[in-house]
Amino acid sequence: MNKLYVIKIGGNVLDDEGTLKKFLKDFASIQAPKILIHGGGKIATKLGDQLGIVSNYVNGRRITDAQTLGLVTMVYGGLINRQMVAQLQHFGCNAMGVTGADGNLLHAVKRPVKDIDYGYVGDITPNSVNSTLLYFLLKQNLVPVFAPLTFADGVILNTNADTIASVLAVSLSKHFDVRLIFCFEKMGVLQDIKDEGSVIRNLNQTLYEKLLKEGSFHDGILPKLENAFSAIHSGVKEVLIGEHTNLLANTGYDTKGTLITLS
Amino acid sequence: MNKLYVIKIGGNVLDDEGTLKKFLKDFASIQAPKILIHGGGKIATKLGDQLGIVSNYVNGRRITDAQTLGLVTMVYGGLINRQMVAQLQHFGCNAMGVTGADGNLLHAVKRPVKDIDYGYVGDITPNSVNSTLLYFLLKQNLVPVFAPLTFADGVILNTNADTIASVLAVSLSKHFDVRLIFCFEKMGVLQDIKDEGSVIRNLNQTLYEKLLKEGSFHDGILPKLENAFSAIHSGVKEVLIGEHTNLLANTGYDTKGTLITLS
Repeated sequence: MNKLYVIKIGGNVLDDEGTLKKFLKDFASIQAPKILIHGGGKIATKLGDQLGIVSNYVNGRRITDAQTLGLVTMVYGGLINRQMVAQLQHFGCNAMGVTGADGNLLHAVKRPVKDIDYGYVGDITPNSVNSTLLYFLLKQNLVPVFAPLTFADGVILNTNADTIASVLAVSLSKHFDVRLIFCFEKMGVLQDIKDEGSVIRNLNQTLYEKLLKEGSFHDGILPKLENAFSAIHSGVKEVLIGEHTNLLANTGYDTKGTLITLS
Repeated sequence: MNKLYVIKIGGNVLDDEGTLKKFLKDFASIQAPKILIHGGGKIATKLGDQLGIVSNYVNGRRITDAQTLGLVTMVYGGLINRQMVAQLQHFGCNAMGVTGADGNLLHAVKRPVKDIDYGYVGDITPNSVNSTLLYFLLKQNLVPVFAPLTFADGVILNTNADTIASVLAVSLSKHFDVRLIFCFEKMGVLQDIKDEGSVIRNLNQTLYEKLLKEGSFHDGILPKLENAFSAIHSGVKEVLIGEHTNLLANTGYDTKGTLITLS
């Protein structure tokens, strides 16, 4: 099967124009089918402050009320996504900016209200993906660029970008050998949180369980690792956790981040 | 050749939620290949006021400075376009919301500075259209929904929605029998501006020239008519100017607006 890169970039990359430009130039130069998923960044918060939209948190988690939904639809789906696509085109990458609503690519279920009403938040599974259309766009050498927005019942929904990346990667595993790459601000998964040089270069299920028992991982990385191994067990060939500046190394053989495989 | 509807809706429809919903429901029910182009509406102006972005006009024409560009990218390309697509999906229409940058569908030239610097405004011609990809998306039963934004040199540009509609219609005339429909707030082209019942139902080149000589058209409609006949002379089969509430009649044989043809 052909290789496919599903690449997620977080908010911190989006907040600096120069850093983002460099990242997009690198991304554009990857000579293989690829998908980009971007997070939100601080722009929405800043704009929300200017507009007097109060961020509402319950147990440390942001609630997407109607005003916040309008804000993120504008900023994630408009400002960030549209500008990113224009820049990628400039770098020779035939990008197409989408939310889950476009072509019904990624439909969601509005999160059911239990203890907390999260508001306009969409939950998704690999079955939410219109992989036929996605495959078809990729075959046309188009490069889908996902904003972290999905939809249900005629309404846009806020959705976690990491989850979108995982779900797309799993769903497309039937068509491609997928490497799912999470770009963040560290070199990779560190054996010693204080030592940037202690990147675990290769991590498989056996080593993961061993290090887990030894308590080697710090709290912050655990959800990412659980997410990664869940993807690996659902058909994704490789997951890589690494720094956004190392994107080109991390799409090659001589990776600099943490490459996660089944065995 | 198959029929294609290229339909433009203006800002006034977008400003009222109920009117827009009704329009989108009608649009979704059209059983033929179709493209929607939407204008801006008053939301951008309102939001601009809240953010303290001052609208800058020269000779009555708005200048798109960097702040205004950010604003219209958010509102036209994000809020309006993304919500519209989600609603169309709900009505069973497989919409895909795009700007000119997506898939390089519509590239522009930044308007050259002569007497006035219009700022971030894109000029386009029928040669600007990636009709191969558009045709291809239509063949997949996707329904492109264009925000009035194009791009050049990695930057989004503000572009007139009427012009985008015309240019798309002309470009796709090689693949389809195109009916280009401009939806506005009047029933059609009126022989007497004070009489809503005086709609000219069929207007061809000969009648147009006759009425033009007689001074029958009021100023406001003249640019629309010039635009319409220019499209007709460039391969578009029919242009219809009519009210947004009559969309379904105007996509049929028994039209209620002004149907413009060559002969």
